[in-house]
Amino acid sequence: MMNMELDLTIRNAVIVNAAQTMRGDIGVRDGRIAVIADSLAPAAQDIDAAGRYVLPGGIDSHCHVEQLSASGLMTADDFYSATVSAAFGGTTTIIPFAAQHRGMSLPKVVEDYHAAAGPKAVIDYSFHLIVSDPTPQALATDLPDLISKGYTSFKVYMTYDKLKLDDGQLLDVLELAGRAGALVMVHAENNDVIKWIAQRLLANGHTAPKFHAVAHDPLAESEATHRVIQFSRLLDTPVLVVHVSGIEAVRNIRAAQTLGVRVYGETCPQYLFLTAKDIDRPGLDGAMFCCSPPPRDAASQEAVWEGLTNGTFQVYSSDHAPYRFDETGKLPKGDKTTFKDMANGVPGLELRLPLLFSEGVLKGRMSIKQFVALTATNHAQMYGLAHRKGSIAVGLDADMAIWDAEKVTKITAGNIHDNVGYTPYEGREITGWPVTVINRGRVVVDDGKLIAGRGDGHFIARKTPGPLRMERKPAESMRLFKSFITSPEASTK
Amino acid sequence: MMNMELDLTIRNAVIVNAAQTMRGDIGVRDGRIAVIADSLAPAAQDIDAAGRYVLPGGIDSHCHVEQLSASGLMTADDFYSATVSAAFGGTTTIIPFAAQHRGMSLPKVVEDYHAAAGPKAVIDYSFHLIVSDPTPQALATDLPDLISKGYTSFKVYMTYDKLKLDDGQLLDVLELAGRAGALVMVHAENNDVIKWIAQRLLANGHTAPKFHAVAHDPLAESEATHRVIQFSRLLDTPVLVVHVSGIEAVRNIRAAQTLGVRVYGETCPQYLFLTAKDIDRPGLDGAMFCCSPPPRDAASQEAVWEGLTNGTFQVYSSDHAPYRFDETGKLPKGDKTTFKDMANGVPGLELRLPLLFSEGVLKGRMSIKQFVALTATNHAQMYGLAHRKGSIAVGLDADMAIWDAEKVTKITAGNIHDNVGYTPYEGREITGWPVTVINRGRVVVDDGKLIAGRGDGHFIARKTPGPLRMERKPAESMRLFKSFITSPEASTK
Amino acid sequence: MMNMELDLTIRNAVIVNAAQTMRGDIGVRDGRIAVIADSLAPAAQDIDAAGRYVLPGGIDSHCHVEQLSASGLMTADDFYSATVSAAFGGTTTIIPFAAQHRGMSLPKVVEDYHAAAGPKAVIDYSFHLIVSDPTPQALATDLPDLISKGYTSFKVYMTYDKLKLDDGQLLDVLELAGRAGALVMVHAENNDVIKWIAQRLLANGHTAPKFHAVAHDPLAESEATHRVIQFSRLLDTPVLVVHVSGIEAVRNIRAAQTLGVRVYGETCPQYLFLTAKDIDRPGLDGAMFCCSPPPRDAASQEAVWEGLTNGTFQVYSSDHAPYRFDETGKLPKGDKTTFKDMANGVPGLELRLPLLFSEGVLKGRMSIKQFVALTATNHAQMYGLAHRKGSIAVGLDADMAIWDAEKVTKITAGNIHDNVGYTPYEGREITGWPVTVINRGRVVVDDGKLIAGRGDGHFIARKTPGPLRMERKPAESMRLFKSFITSPEASTK
Amino acid sequence: MMNMELDLTIRNAVIVNAAQTMRGDIGVRDGRIAVIADSLAPAAQDIDAAGRYVLPGGIDSHCHVEQLSASGLMTADDFYSATVSAAFGGTTTIIPFAAQHRGMSLPKVVEDYHAAAGPKAVIDYSFHLIVSDPTPQALATDLPDLISKGYTSFKVYMTYDKLKLDDGQLLDVLELAGRAGALVMVHAENNDVIKWIAQRLLANGHTAPKFHAVAHDPLAESEATHRVIQFSRLLDTPVLVVHVSGIEAVRNIRAAQTLGVRVYGETCPQYLFLTAKDIDRPGLDGAMFCCSPPPRDAASQEAVWEGLTNGTFQVYSSDHAPYRFDETGKLPKGDKTTFKDMANGVPGLELRLPLLFSEGVLKGRMSIKQFVALTATNHAQMYGLAHRKGSIAVGLDADMAIWDAEKVTKITAGNIHDNVGYTPYEGREITGWPVTVINRGRVVVDDGKLIAGRGDGHFIARKTPGPLRMERKPAESMRLFKSFITSPEASTK
Repeated sequence: MMNMELDLTIRNAVIVNAAQTMRGDIGVRDGRIAVIADSLAPAAQDIDAAGRYVLPGGIDSHCHVEQLSASGLMTADDFYSATVSAAFGGTTTIIPFAAQHRGMSLPKVVEDYHAAAGPKAVIDYSFHLIVSDPTPQALATDLPDLISKGYTSFKVYMTYDKLKLDDGQLLDVLELAGRAGALVMVHAENNDVIKWIAQRLLANGHTAPKFHAVAHDPLAESEATHRVIQFSRLLDTPVLVVHVSGIEAVRNIRAAQTLGVRVYGETCPQYLFLTAKDIDRPGLDGAMFCCSPPPRDAASQEAVWEGLTNGTFQVYSSDHAPYRFDETGKLPKGDKTTFKDMANGVPGLELRLPLLFSEGVLKGRMSIKQFVALTATNHAQMYGLAHRKGSIAVGLDADMAIWDAEKVTKITAGNIHDNVGYTPYEGREITGWPVTVINRGRVVVDDGKLIAGRGDGHFIARKTPGPLRMERKPAESMRLFKSFITSPEASTK
Repeated sequence: MMNMELDLTIRNAVIVNAAQTMRGDIGVRDGRIAVIADSLAPAAQDIDAAGRYVLPGGIDSHCHVEQLSASGLMTADDFYSATVSAAFGGTTTIIPFAAQHRGMSLPKVVEDYHAAAGPKAVIDYSFHLIVSDPTPQALATDLPDLISKGYTSFKVYMTYDKLKLDDGQLLDVLELAGRAGALVMVHAENNDVIKWIAQRLLANGHTAPKFHAVAHDPLAESEATHRVIQFSRLLDTPVLVVHVSGIEAVRNIRAAQTLGVRVYGETCPQYLFLTAKDIDRPGLDGAMFCCSPPPRDAASQEAVWEGLTNGTFQVYSSDHAPYRFDETGKLPKGDKTTFKDMANGVPGLELRLPLLFSEGVLKGRMSIKQFVALTATNHAQMYGLAHRKGSIAVGLDADMAIWDAEKVTKITAGNIHDNVGYTPYEGREITGWPVTVINRGRVVVDDGKLIAGRGDGHFIARKTPGPLRMERKPAESMRLFKSFITSPEASTK
Repeated sequence: MMNMELDLTIRNAVIVNAAQTMRGDIGVRDGRIAVIADSLAPAAQDIDAAGRYVLPGGIDSHCHVEQLSASGLMTADDFYSATVSAAFGGTTTIIPFAAQHRGMSLPKVVEDYHAAAGPKAVIDYSFHLIVSDPTPQALATDLPDLISKGYTSFKVYMTYDKLKLDDGQLLDVLELAGRAGALVMVHAENNDVIKWIAQRLLANGHTAPKFHAVAHDPLAESEATHRVIQFSRLLDTPVLVVHVSGIEAVRNIRAAQTLGVRVYGETCPQYLFLTAKDIDRPGLDGAMFCCSPPPRDAASQEAVWEGLTNGTFQVYSSDHAPYRFDETGKLPKGDKTTFKDMANGVPGLELRLPLLFSEGVLKGRMSIKQFVALTATNHAQMYGLAHRKGSIAVGLDADMAIWDAEKVTKITAGNIHDNVGYTPYEGREITGWPVTVINRGRVVVDDGKLIAGRGDGHFIARKTPGPLRMERKPAESMRLFKSFITSPEASTK
Repeated sequence: MMNMELDLTIRNAVIVNAAQTMRGDIGVRDGRIAVIADSLAPAAQDIDAAGRYVLPGGIDSHCHVEQLSASGLMTADDFYSATVSAAFGGTTTIIPFAAQHRGMSLPKVVEDYHAAAGPKAVIDYSFHLIVSDPTPQALATDLPDLISKGYTSFKVYMTYDKLKLDDGQLLDVLELAGRAGALVMVHAENNDVIKWIAQRLLANGHTAPKFHAVAHDPLAESEATHRVIQFSRLLDTPVLVVHVSGIEAVRNIRAAQTLGVRVYGETCPQYLFLTAKDIDRPGLDGAMFCCSPPPRDAASQEAVWEGLTNGTFQVYSSDHAPYRFDETGKLPKGDKTTFKDMANGVPGLELRLPLLFSEGVLKGRMSIKQFVALTATNHAQMYGLAHRKGSIAVGLDADMAIWDAEKVTKITAGNIHDNVGYTPYEGREITGWPVTVINRGRVVVDDGKLIAGRGDGHFIARKTPGPLRMERKPAESMRLFKSFITSPEASTK
């Protein structure tokens, strides 16, 4: 065997996986990792990684790219610019959304997103389904079919009038997901609370961006988080609360995990590196820092950091939302724009990993192994990609980012490869950067240059995700009603 | 002055108030307690209470009597039978509901209930307002007017399609109440959860009464309890969660109280003396034990007891709901009646106090002073009646119940004075009974005989209730948004 | 009867008890309250209390007066100066300590304290027993005998080398108390933790008073509080944690109460009105604010206030410790005195009630009824005095304080009647003062003048205290071992 | 490079690491893993692992082997029998104790244990130091020296009269460990509580083995666990609570982890597979199930399982304690032996892994990756062995166990290779067994046959352990006193 032909070697590396680091050489053949050894001869293409860390390519499992169904607001990125930007930041797989709006057919939505992504993506991708209209048809046919085709996760909203599910619909979707093995991601904020406060703020003339954070009171988030956790308990169905921002939401998740509830959590750079103070700028500049939920105060920021290191959160994603600071996005009514008119969201595909590497790993808040788990391995595990992605291991896709841990970068929008035009992290100096990024053995980015081309990325069908921890059935989850419902899908007809 | 003319003396009593017992004689003049002394000469009317306990007359602050607006179901009691039954059980004041259904004018509702109660009540009464339609008119005008006229508490529902408020409406009512000083009582159950389970149970042919308790999963209660507590925190408005039944709801309330949230709790006999097992009877008999929320399991029963003694609950009421075990109430479809068709609720006006006296006081679970606090004093305090009711003190209404702590009674429906026709406590033997009951100096019941007549009871206008504990403003309650809303009522226009 | 001869009338009062306020006239005969009526004719001695509040006389259940057994430090007060000072501050009963040091016979200790107090006290008093040497003799004979004679509470220390009990001794005392019905007060701080830190502070040259607070880290308190709570659970014996100062100790107590553990709490003025910052003064002045445990930070101060209003604490006492700011007390080594040499403790007998009235009642943090409960009624209840003290009720001792709620006082040591010579509250302006103070019908203080004389106070034998709440036995308290131990006292032989 | 000479190949394996599984071939050279590839040619020695799982060799970081200093009781195993037994059960490294008794020199203790182990061990080993006498000499010199030589973990006892540290000593050891980077393992039980109960049980004639579990009330464990956690917080020093058995201890650890305290936990087979009921057998047979802490009830067993899967526990060890069921161990006084006379402890070196594989992995309570983490990877990480052990990764020692997941075994003492003579799991049928076990490339056990010889095992010097999660400094851990202590070791002189 030792005469195996390798396409690419990466040698002299410190290889970092979620549970172990090792020194060795990596050999790639046909896009997969064929060998890891203490020493390999160089292949035709050979990269000397001496003095560098070789990490699994990042997986960004929460990002908005092109929004195909018009909502009035225009996303600035398409699948090309978004994947290029992700790749420059060390990410080799993204899982954006195929977003259903009410009345749309889910299979058609998926088809449309494939058409948009296929010719443009430079790195691999998959799709979550945003489910905003869980009709009997969707529940009985469309969703099971799509799950079987590799769309094994849904996102649902508890807020936004146009997207939100009511509690009954939420139970319908969770029940189906639990039965079919899909994972449900939840945007948990109480819609009425936010509207109630916002209405009064506007009536009192408070329109500035900073009032976005006031309207999205942390209790709106922690209440909805608690509520969906109860639904998860009721049905014994896993649920993943995304973009967790406030200290009480963190605590609610942690308390449920302690009880054995299968609730998981995700957080994002904006909750580690921004606070509500960043939104409080003259004029409308604060809009550049507005997302939902918004950055909170220092205590919440600290709680989110703690949740990232103590196991409360399994995944760290960008929630990239590409809205420009102009009429197409953040400022639809120009300088008359109120906090209610603005597009919500901040960009983050490219800086997600460098920010955490610099502030988390190099400042001693987490080990580099934890970094790998939170940015790649756990995403693969939770979203059904572990057979292809998430670790540097023989047989898996050769997705890797080679990090120079000493490179110092001053962040500026001009150097970022998305189309958003600003970054909320403008001017920060960070250390560490993924200088070479490899996807299925192809060098996508090297030393600041894009190598891969449009359409080089592949769609990856996902398996039914395994939960990060395979828990025994907690006794408390066996709700009485379950024993009486022999065919739970009955109700969806 | 010692030549004061007394109308009534009660002598040789052990007088029990919420914080102190004493031995002494009580003198009544003009319906009020004029004197308490170590020894008084007998008045024209003199009661020798030697060997007995004289307690403040009970206040039942949660009971349904006549339901004036037709919902298809017929309440069996009217203000005569209900007040007679209450009086026989040691209660001298009731606070039933003036119930608005959607589309009704609140002032008209109140007028109608006055017309019904005035000519019939044999003991004093007041009214809570059930608010099911918080229109701008109601919020801006009707409710403030009614508060000023002595209707200083509202009840709102988070469940029942016909009555429930959505979260925004709930916030509207809570905000008004907080501003005007009224107290909001909340029926906290998640409507969608109950419907979701019930639909599946029925679809699977599970129609027996016991499935009422299955559909009303404890998580439906604890979720809604948590939710309304968050709204209370958001607005820094007191809220009283009524008829708390499940261990997690108890814990949610207690945890919030620990944080300084102004949440209060009520429980009822059915959660102390019944469990879900009582509902599981052959045929439709279980319907006699169905109320919402339903009796739970032993752990919840224990938690409710504990909450009653450790300060989590302030008030203990009956939630009397007078539905007969026939087509007018529990069995609208005869033997085809499913758990969803049945009227919810159990009777309890008469047995509320004797049950707790026997099982709580005499079995050592609480002191007799606690009994007084939970059955009378705290009701007066929380609902704005403390200037008239709730203690045996000079200047207050002479409302008293003289208890024979040794009298043994075997409970049977035939001996109960309501019109319900059954009791869920049939056959139990209890010890202790209020043998003489006095309301504003009038003997209403004596030795098993009714003395008072129709219409002898008075309407009592209530003051803005003082919270049971006058708390300092918890720092955490000062939500950011409040400082920006100068005229909160703006939004109700 | 109406021809009863009254010795004293207090008329036109607003009478405040723990559960009810009322307007009326109070008549006193033979030292007891004989009558409360809406109107009484004036007796020979008549006090017009119009515009004033008449409250039960305060009970101070935690104060150090004369320390009879020399410990090197000298208490500045004796039973005369201490009781005079207490009376001026509205207190009519004190329960100081009869303090055993190791090797002393408890009956002899009690005899000595009687000899000291009897001829001097101007108000009523009782004694707790400080138990530092629970020998088999003490456990088998002395303590049961003393309980039967009215010494129904013990204090034990978990810190101080000379006084502390080890865990086994603590269990011995708790077990006896549980069996005999006495209440155990605990000074809960971990002795080793304090010594460990103090040793290092001194070794590093940190000797100033403020290091007292550093050495007494809040974890030393919360750890010991948790530990003794576990012992209370183990034995199902009530325990009262005294002078609680830190937020975590408060939380530990609250959490245990939620579980049904019979743990009670006390706090003191120094934890409501001082913080560790007060100790940080130039030179040795900070010593005037040093007590154990020390005042903490703002978060703990807030938690202690919250605990006072939400039911975590039942009693509010002074922990008066009369050490002068000179060589006899705070500065045994003059200006070489380190924080380890100083006497611990602050004075508080006189200002305890006025401070809380001004800052608690008048600033809206608690109701005046809560004030009465925390300063008088609950002390009587918990320490077996409710048959004599704690309420204004017919048959009880005529112990009352008449408060002028508008009187403004600037605190200065010169106006305080103890012998300590300084007050930690120097210069504060407070509102409200008990202008007339009555003990068993005797006016002790009136309008700034002392009326009563040395030895006018009586010793009050106490009953076995009833717990404030008569709880049902929590299921969890029935530890397995209890069923196997038929004669628990066996081991004390 | 591809011409590397391999000593051993393991081919066609499903390789399982803590964060990833992969299919591939493993090549070993010079005792280390030289290559993992999708396909390798067979080396001279070649093992076909088709259909089997190849896992990292187990690490048992808590086991008692030979007890060199006489305590009256005799350990049945020596380093030969113990390591043989461990190897048969899939373990390739053990970390037993070098046990200091009071008065002994630690360097001498270590020397003695080396002399005992070196000639006998068949697998690799290291030593923890049991510290029972933290003299100034030990703290200042011996322990730092030993840490630098690879003894980077201590065990301390809070119970057992002969071994326990008092709280001050515990702080001394923790402080040193925190400074020097060693990890402290704690046996957390309150010594006085256990003695207090035991004395009363014996006085009442309760001597049977089951009273061991009664005396070791769960509160003794949870109290001590809480206490040492507070010390960990005080000093911001990691601590590992070993052999956690009771639900409250689990909760105390979890709550502290949630706060960011660096506390870790270990549990053992006896708390997953036994309960206190197992001890309740006729005569003295129950002694075979006695260990400290003892197996608890079903709720605790469930909590321990939950803690194993939700991250509360990091390591799962045997706490092997080889006492025979005869006069040398369990029955020192023959049939007069009381529960206080018996040796505490149960054997477990051999069955630790097979029991968890069968009941945990194959019954779906945890994933096989979690199994690897809990039985090998985390031990390596926490105890400073990750540079050599704990994963199947290039460059690490070739320590592997090849598992046949279908092999069914009926447990019986006769088939176990230790010298204890009984097993508490007698008669159970389990599935899955490590059929081939390899240590540094040497096949130690194959198909039921021992291949390795006495002394083939090596001592492994350990590095300063990295905590499993590299946490940022929790804000709360910066206790005030720390800033004032510049040379903390001052006090140890």
